[in-house]
Amino acid sequence: MQRFVDLAELGTPEVQELLALARRLEQHPEPQALAGKVLGLLFLNPSLRTLASFQSGMARLGGSSFVITPGQGSWQLETREGVVMNGAAAEHIREGLPVLASYCDALGIRAFAEGKDLASDLADRQFGAMAALVDRPLVNLESAINHPCQALADWKTLDELPGAGRRRFVLSWAMHPRALPLAVPAAIVHMAAMRGMEVIVLRPDGFALPPAIMERARAAAAVSGGSVSETTDRESALAGAHVLYAKEWGSTAHYGDAEADLEARRELGHWCVRPDWFARSAPDCRVMHCLPVRRNSAIADEVLDGPRSLVLRQAYNRLPAQMAVLHRLLKS
Amino acid sequence: MQRFVDLAELGTPEVQELLALARRLEQHPEPQALAGKVLGLLFLNPSLRTLASFQSGMARLGGSSFVITPGQGSWQLETREGVVMNGAAAEHIREGLPVLASYCDALGIRAFAEGKDLASDLADRQFGAMAALVDRPLVNLESAINHPCQALADWKTLDELPGAGRRRFVLSWAMHPRALPLAVPAAIVHMAAMRGMEVIVLRPDGFALPPAIMERARAAAAVSGGSVSETTDRESALAGAHVLYAKEWGSTAHYGDAEADLEARRELGHWCVRPDWFARSAPDCRVMHCLPVRRNSAIADEVLDGPRSLVLRQAYNRLPAQMAVLHRLLKS
Amino acid sequence: MQRFVDLAELGTPEVQELLALARRLEQHPEPQALAGKVLGLLFLNPSLRTLASFQSGMARLGGSSFVITPGQGSWQLETREGVVMNGAAAEHIREGLPVLASYCDALGIRAFAEGKDLASDLADRQFGAMAALVDRPLVNLESAINHPCQALADWKTLDELPGAGRRRFVLSWAMHPRALPLAVPAAIVHMAAMRGMEVIVLRPDGFALPPAIMERARAAAAVSGGSVSETTDRESALAGAHVLYAKEWGSTAHYGDAEADLEARRELGHWCVRPDWFARSAPDCRVMHCLPVRRNSAIADEVLDGPRSLVLRQAYNRLPAQMAVLHRLLKS
Repeated sequence: MQRFVDLAELGTPEVQELLALARRLEQHPEPQALAGKVLGLLFLNPSLRTLASFQSGMARLGGSSFVITPGQGSWQLETREGVVMNGAAAEHIREGLPVLASYCDALGIRAFAEGKDLASDLADRQFGAMAALVDRPLVNLESAINHPCQALADWKTLDELPGAGRRRFVLSWAMHPRALPLAVPAAIVHMAAMRGMEVIVLRPDGFALPPAIMERARAAAAVSGGSVSETTDRESALAGAHVLYAKEWGSTAHYGDAEADLEARRELGHWCVRPDWFARSAPDCRVMHCLPVRRNSAIADEVLDGPRSLVLRQAYNRLPAQMAVLHRLLKS
Repeated sequence: MQRFVDLAELGTPEVQELLALARRLEQHPEPQALAGKVLGLLFLNPSLRTLASFQSGMARLGGSSFVITPGQGSWQLETREGVVMNGAAAEHIREGLPVLASYCDALGIRAFAEGKDLASDLADRQFGAMAALVDRPLVNLESAINHPCQALADWKTLDELPGAGRRRFVLSWAMHPRALPLAVPAAIVHMAAMRGMEVIVLRPDGFALPPAIMERARAAAAVSGGSVSETTDRESALAGAHVLYAKEWGSTAHYGDAEADLEARRELGHWCVRPDWFARSAPDCRVMHCLPVRRNSAIADEVLDGPRSLVLRQAYNRLPAQMAVLHRLLKS
Repeated sequence: MQRFVDLAELGTPEVQELLALARRLEQHPEPQALAGKVLGLLFLNPSLRTLASFQSGMARLGGSSFVITPGQGSWQLETREGVVMNGAAAEHIREGLPVLASYCDALGIRAFAEGKDLASDLADRQFGAMAALVDRPLVNLESAINHPCQALADWKTLDELPGAGRRRFVLSWAMHPRALPLAVPAAIVHMAAMRGMEVIVLRPDGFALPPAIMERARAAAAVSGGSVSETTDRESALAGAHVLYAKEWGSTAHYGDAEADLEARRELGHWCVRPDWFARSAPDCRVMHCLPVRRNSAIADEVLDGPRSLVLRQAYNRLPAQMAVLHRLLKS
């Protein structure tokens, strides 16, 4: 494995090998596996799980890491090509990225969507430009349109459920005070399709996932024997659901227009996952979320604090899943 | 030892064992004792000594650490229960804390007093709420009303003085441009009482320590054979004093009222520890302070730079004292 | 070696030993050389290369490091003597520095020029005041007037060029939106002179390096057999040049006067290193820069992305050069 930027680059057998390795490392720690190795972590956006779990995971494998946060102790980074740099950014990624890469054995990069141009974000243009500058094993810590570390950890969490095989998986839009990126919904719908699940995307009008994301998931389902559909009807979506994965994202009908997005979500306060969603037809449905979650906006306290919730297990699984990734990328 | 959040939870014999271990680690380093162990450090407030010494101490014992600073590279944390999270905080402690705990072998938390509701701060409600979410060994890096790491290091510093037994210990209020929390004075008056010292709290009117703090210290003195009293009279307090511990804190008569607090301290500029405090009746009195200290506001340059000062030794002792704590919490 | 704060303190033979050690560590890693050692890194100013490479270098030698950034998770530091501290800074360097030193085996400090008083900056008064408070091996991570880590890495980069001996070295002023400090030009002109090069400082009127810097470089050239001159004439400077080192700095004729500096640089947009600078008389001239560089302000894209550029190699060389420094300072 040369890099970990998209589950689709790996294919299911390699994902399963990674998860087997993750389970093995949980059972049989290898505290010297990455002795002397250094992981660089570049965060253009905030983080808690990724920031903590990569540092911890690297340490548990005997390696080290350093964190660079442009604008907080480090120079702001310019990403545009050909620009005359006379503004706030003192350093261009064309220098910053290769330089950081030259100090480490693998580099992780977090760069959220700019949220202005949907085509550019769907093509993951900014992450791609950065990745092209790195001649080391690369880890996607969440890009405009992907979050493979989350997808891998969630796959592991699903594997741990009883009857982990073909199951009804609902990705539901959830309320948030403002637009969030498409990275997690795109990664998760694709992951669930790769796993061969019956995937239903449940979202209000104006919040459909872009066709490119849906088609990519359908292609994965065609290989795995799963399916991918979408609906605005909560009751039909939840009927018989085994897993509801709640996630907030911006209005795709008004991508990049913060005001129109706010207007579009104004009446959507009922898209907060509550116990009564499950009462009738999905009594055993589990609830997933990638965190951070805004309580009582996206998911109600009673759900997060109740037995349906898998969110802490998902977060925990980031650690062994990513340790497997690091092990595969860096173990000589 | 399951956690280190309050010297009172330990009792004197266990404190003395910790200090013996601290001295042993100074003499006989154990650079592999915590190999493979990871300490998480969550700072909701600024730090220099705690931030540096815990990272260094963990490294000197062969372990690793990571630092999370909400609002600086990590999400702001919500602490209120039951709230609809539609404000600035993206993550609730109910997720953030257990998640961080799941990535490490022990977790340290710094959360200063909110400084609004005295009863809430005295009960250490915020720290208690966070501690309840952590299923790992926990270290109090300074809470609303406690700072056991400082107290332990100061105990060690006192032990290093000639005639370390029963001695006259004055905790004196000192000037600061604005109100500071009660954590250090509460921890220090209790520590000195536990050590069996003759403790005098010297402070202006309006700045008496709350009865709950004084009573807790008196209970400790009753066990140790020490005593605890308070006064506004500097001359009588300092007569024969062996140690003056200077500390700034807010007006308890106006707790949570910044304006009234400022007014209360307006004429208190003479509460800056100066050489003439000691001239008459306490010529050999040593001066302690937990740092950071505002020079020439709380303590004059001549005192800090002179032979009375123990402040650098106190700060240094944070390292071995905390290494002993980590060793006890994490060494298998 | 007791500290690494200025190449001039070392002399050429010791520099050459450091560079030999750097090359040896590149060939034969010593992943346990600094096991158990802790490096403290205090950054009063932003960094990317220094911040990442020191952490990585320490880890590759088996040691650990911690980073303190006053104002970002740590207290703001006061540097003035005798002041009444009733402003924003909560901690004085007279406590902060010795305390940090007591937690580590070596301390690195970055403190850029204040840029107000030229005499004070030339004397490196602030760094000197901090250095005097540290009783540990000390590394200058860039002070008001020096950047020995950059100079050492650049020396190594020059050594790697074909015919590394006596060569024509042009330090050229380059455009920047505002005044930058003199640390790098001062360190580089001195380094090139120490290496016995024919050094030409090329700069517009009003941007001459201060006499103290030029004299110091000439003294080094007198020992090494090199030479140091200065000019405003680009064509004569570049004729036959082997290396052009581009660097931005503030107007020395208007030191500390931001408005006059802006006015002085208003017509200097042509001081952006472009391919046509080399076409006539320096076809094989290589281009160096310490980074970060503002593309198309100081150096054009075509130059940075072309075969003349050494900037990534310079940045990479920070790692082995500094590992040699750490090895010499800390290996017992």
